[in-house]
Amino acid sequence: MTHPLIDALRPLLGDAHVLVPGALPDTELTPYQQDWRKRYNGRALAVVRPGTTGEVAAVVKLARAHGVSVVPQGGNTGLVGGGVPDDSGTQLLLSLRRMQKVRHLDAANLTLTVEAGCVLQQVQDTARQAGLLFPLSLAAEGSCTIGGNLSTNAGGTQVLRYGNARELCLGLEVVTAEGEIWDGLSGLRKDNTGYDLRDLFIGAEGTLGIITAATLKLFPQPRARMTALAACASLSATVALLGMAQSRCGASLTGFEVMNAQSLALVAKHFPQLAQPLGARPWTVLLELSDNEGESHAREQFEGVLSQALEDGVIDDAAVAESLSQSQAMWHLRESIPLAQSEEGLNIKHDIALPVSRIPDFVAACDGLLAERFPGSRLVNFGHLGDGNLHYNVQSPAGVSAAEFLKTHEAAVNAVVYDQVMAHGGSISAEHGIGQLKREELAQRKSPVALALMRQIKQALDPRGLLNPNRVV
Amino acid sequence: MTHPLIDALRPLLGDAHVLVPGALPDTELTPYQQDWRKRYNGRALAVVRPGTTGEVAAVVKLARAHGVSVVPQGGNTGLVGGGVPDDSGTQLLLSLRRMQKVRHLDAANLTLTVEAGCVLQQVQDTARQAGLLFPLSLAAEGSCTIGGNLSTNAGGTQVLRYGNARELCLGLEVVTAEGEIWDGLSGLRKDNTGYDLRDLFIGAEGTLGIITAATLKLFPQPRARMTALAACASLSATVALLGMAQSRCGASLTGFEVMNAQSLALVAKHFPQLAQPLGARPWTVLLELSDNEGESHAREQFEGVLSQALEDGVIDDAAVAESLSQSQAMWHLRESIPLAQSEEGLNIKHDIALPVSRIPDFVAACDGLLAERFPGSRLVNFGHLGDGNLHYNVQSPAGVSAAEFLKTHEAAVNAVVYDQVMAHGGSISAEHGIGQLKREELAQRKSPVALALMRQIKQALDPRGLLNPNRVV
Repeated sequence: MTHPLIDALRPLLGDAHVLVPGALPDTELTPYQQDWRKRYNGRALAVVRPGTTGEVAAVVKLARAHGVSVVPQGGNTGLVGGGVPDDSGTQLLLSLRRMQKVRHLDAANLTLTVEAGCVLQQVQDTARQAGLLFPLSLAAEGSCTIGGNLSTNAGGTQVLRYGNARELCLGLEVVTAEGEIWDGLSGLRKDNTGYDLRDLFIGAEGTLGIITAATLKLFPQPRARMTALAACASLSATVALLGMAQSRCGASLTGFEVMNAQSLALVAKHFPQLAQPLGARPWTVLLELSDNEGESHAREQFEGVLSQALEDGVIDDAAVAESLSQSQAMWHLRESIPLAQSEEGLNIKHDIALPVSRIPDFVAACDGLLAERFPGSRLVNFGHLGDGNLHYNVQSPAGVSAAEFLKTHEAAVNAVVYDQVMAHGGSISAEHGIGQLKREELAQRKSPVALALMRQIKQALDPRGLLNPNRVV
Repeated sequence: MTHPLIDALRPLLGDAHVLVPGALPDTELTPYQQDWRKRYNGRALAVVRPGTTGEVAAVVKLARAHGVSVVPQGGNTGLVGGGVPDDSGTQLLLSLRRMQKVRHLDAANLTLTVEAGCVLQQVQDTARQAGLLFPLSLAAEGSCTIGGNLSTNAGGTQVLRYGNARELCLGLEVVTAEGEIWDGLSGLRKDNTGYDLRDLFIGAEGTLGIITAATLKLFPQPRARMTALAACASLSATVALLGMAQSRCGASLTGFEVMNAQSLALVAKHFPQLAQPLGARPWTVLLELSDNEGESHAREQFEGVLSQALEDGVIDDAAVAESLSQSQAMWHLRESIPLAQSEEGLNIKHDIALPVSRIPDFVAACDGLLAERFPGSRLVNFGHLGDGNLHYNVQSPAGVSAAEFLKTHEAAVNAVVYDQVMAHGGSISAEHGIGQLKREELAQRKSPVALALMRQIKQALDPRGLLNPNRVV
């Protein structure tokens, strides 16, 4: 297959970095054209792999000249189909994975400038080797890229203390829809010179520009990290525990995850080798402290909070990790929930956020409605309570085919859940983004004024609609 | 003076809230038409004081229908002339000061929703009365409004730990240029449903929309706050001390201010009653700790850092406050610098930011050039080193008329300073914004790509240019 754009791209990037479907075995293109959960199968005009910002800009200019739309892609670990092409065979898939340079680490300024294709773990490691911390941490960190993390404003397990990807970024380099390069790679903590372009590109999923590099915030490495589990009789009690821990530990509290009984029951079923120190409880909380003084201070802090919480009847039991390996085992429990869910079969996932104060009411209302309308459906509810972020997933009743349940009920389940989210002042996408998956839902749920503003911005920065079209807006 | 717009506004707002120059003594209008430093004297068509978001929206719609531009104003404490009308007599000055409702405090969610006209101190007090902290703190806090703080992305003394106004805001309510109301008052810590409209309005100085209310982040009140002074022989030593304090104290380090010898000499001259515990030193650092455990723990932390720094030769001397009043006295020293400068006479102010690591080189280079080109000029250099933010102010040589010096040299001094700021990767406006004062400078200094993006956004959201025209872009 030839196309004048492909003919123009080959000399620019070299043949090895212009992959054309049909001319190559499908297997070489699948990693780019299909998302990792295999929900979206696209077909690109070509996959291009520029190696420099200049090449990205040149690709965008060429694509623009040929009226071809461009879909940027990082590690292809997204959950909403935002980074794979549609199946028209007319879009250019622009992979940023070759842009892996660590450009500059400035220890005194606590900043690190990296290219978009750096894998998150590589960024973490680079900081660690300098005795510093880049705190963004999430399940896909071994393969997701920092450019993708920023384009989707990724969250993860350390948001409570350090914020989302947005809060961890001081500056960006972006290729605009016109193929111009905006060098906004500032290492500044204060800069009030005009509109906040940085935060407009962050979370825009490549629809307003292509992030090619970023200057990230680093932090001193805490001297100790320690984990504890606590058992609560109700979700309200977990919210009370959060308040106590925040008040007592302040910024040292870096993790606060909740897991309902159903979540840990699935883990027990599929991974019986994993110890569950507190046994089966209505709610289990994982708390993490990152301490600047050391392990004994962290232990003291934990004991202070947890003994008070026991005394006040907020928790029924607790276990503080005695070693690093016990800490890791506690995190492993939490991280095994999505894997246990996969083992159990397909489920209907909801990545939602609510004001922390309204979570107990939301869950009571939503659990009730789902039990009524879909008797026997199992609620696997877990997540980052400290950030108000729940992964509120609905699994088919035991013995019912998951595929059948999804086919019949997915839309109706989503309607119940999202109606309740909206009624409780929440968000239908906490950290996964919109992409293709939730674009229609967003158009229904977001205020018309906000949608109009978003469309005006898209129209202003990408008037021909060539950057990741039909995603987000 | 009559104008069809005024005739339409009176029944909407009531006569008491439509102030028309000419019809009223000038003194009633001066607080709106002139900035507090008396650098900008405007003349409005009228000053309107809506009391509700609905009224703000109705005013904007009416103004739009009459093709009249609108200048929003909060506490009128800005430093760049962003909130006063021009002198054409054709602009509507929209004061938000009557919008003072505290709408909702959600202690479990650590959020506070207030209207734009709330004075910052009122916001701080509301949080404190609930046992919580709203950390934004700056010199004008007794009269500036939260709407103005957000519209200018204010900084202040607690940015090191808590961030700028931007980082302290979770959601906004905004009246758009079309007079529509965007209700984005979310109390969510994670929300990835589309473009980041919030951060686009924050720091836009009322040129893209009018902020009418905000949902703010609160924090637990720290149990103790403690202050220390340290003497350093060089600016590099202050940077080294910052690194040591951050590594040891982490997020407990809430303040890190530097003051050069000239700054404290002016304080000694004009406020001789203020004790200067360390005497005259090349550089004095004020450190503040906010501790979740208590005073003795904070003291332990300070003693750990400072004794290590003494041992390593990073500091020459230190004094830890023994009481709250000693802490306050230390802050008072720092806060007296701008006042001492005013007593000494006019000076050329620069609110700049740099990567912390480059500050020593910048100051050496810039001090050198200014000494060469303007012999005897005095550098009053102080600020929030922890944020990379210096107030790098140039005072006339002793004995030379300040007014004369400014008149002759202001432009040339600015050129030297801003050239050096740019050469060292800095920003010409760290926390004060652009307004009228730096608009031309910004157009010269900002990258053409960034300026083009800013103009496209302005054009998209306010195509008729009726919101605070000729400010920022």
